[in-house]
Amino acid sequence: MIQTMQLEFKTKGENDILNITAEIQDSLAQSKTKEGFVLLFLQSSTSSLAIMEYEDGLLKDIPNSLNRLAPTSGEYEHEKAWHDGNGHSHVRSSLLGVNLSVPFGNRKLLLGTWQQIVLMEFDVRPRKRDVIMQIVSG
Amino acid sequence: MIQTMQLEFKTKGENDILNITAEIQDSLAQSKTKEGFVLLFLQSSTSSLAIMEYEDGLLKDIPNSLNRLAPTSGEYEHEKAWHDGNGHSHVRSSLLGVNLSVPFGNRKLLLGTWQQIVLMEFDVRPRKRDVIMQIVSG
Amino acid sequence: MIQTMQLEFKTKGENDILNITAEIQDSLAQSKTKEGFVLLFLQSSTSSLAIMEYEDGLLKDIPNSLNRLAPTSGEYEHEKAWHDGNGHSHVRSSLLGVNLSVPFGNRKLLLGTWQQIVLMEFDVRPRKRDVIMQIVSG
Repeated sequence: MIQTMQLEFKTKGENDILNITAEIQDSLAQSKTKEGFVLLFLQSSTSSLAIMEYEDGLLKDIPNSLNRLAPTSGEYEHEKAWHDGNGHSHVRSSLLGVNLSVPFGNRKLLLGTWQQIVLMEFDVRPRKRDVIMQIVSG
Repeated sequence: MIQTMQLEFKTKGENDILNITAEIQDSLAQSKTKEGFVLLFLQSSTSSLAIMEYEDGLLKDIPNSLNRLAPTSGEYEHEKAWHDGNGHSHVRSSLLGVNLSVPFGNRKLLLGTWQQIVLMEFDVRPRKRDVIMQIVSG
Repeated sequence: MIQTMQLEFKTKGENDILNITAEIQDSLAQSKTKEGFVLLFLQSSTSSLAIMEYEDGLLKDIPNSLNRLAPTSGEYEHEKAWHDGNGHSHVRSSLLGVNLSVPFGNRKLLLGTWQQIVLMEFDVRPRKRDVIMQIVSG
């Protein structure tokens, strides 16, 4: 059994990291299924979904580390054609990914104590983001 | 309900990035299921599956950024034993991953406007690549 | 049909990489399902699940490459508050991920010849790790 829904989030721009665990847990709790998993798919090429401990220090450390991989100050072929200043945002999104599957039992996400589900904005301006959520149960 | 099939792709060698969205959409359209998701699994340890905006600039920017993480010119313990020159290819494949799940509705992949599904070849020579595709529906 | 179980692993500390393919294959073989996929979810924010060729050289090459992204010697805001020396471990875990889905047929994981499923410990001390495993079948 699969139920498909859409969640919408608003980000404040580059390196805004939203804790979306509660929204997903709430959508799950409204369903009648007890055991299964939640599939999440972010319809974006300049932001990502990830699991992290949602903690002030790491909210800075993760963008800092990504800056070693795809520096904001780097040169990107993407920008030569598009001039939108988000070449590094695309690279980060593709490498981190937009897709997660999280198991649940008794209508509760089976996350570890220090795990939260986050949406990481890499684009250079505030964006509206759509996440497709499917509740898959037996 | 789960249907399993296998898709085959041919790559031209290092940093060849194939847009495989149409092949996956076509395989999905032939099935009778309306709502669910497609699970993709690439049977490789030197290439990856990812989502990106398939655009000329980014086809260069992504390999350039990966070269900061696992440089082609780096020294790899893997090569001391195997001498196949693809240590960096293995590292890139493991870090980017070989597995995606993409939801669909009305037999159509629910991708964002700027999202394509790609197969990234990291190995140093042309390869034949097998992708296991499962159509999972309610 | 979905069956949920929990697997436990013990790691020896930083950069210990466990080949957990056999444990997953064994758990799968005990089920009665023939075709489907295995969903794996590691309940941790300082370790990861990945696919790699489990080979001595790469067991060193992958941590070496991750050290370019999130150096052990780097400065992390996380550590200013928590002083547990694992800022880089958190960053690596979030970027590599904790979630895999692997298809199977005839009760056998459909892995490529050179693919193994691994648990990578990034934390600075030995840890007990819990993996939620779901067998999803048609």
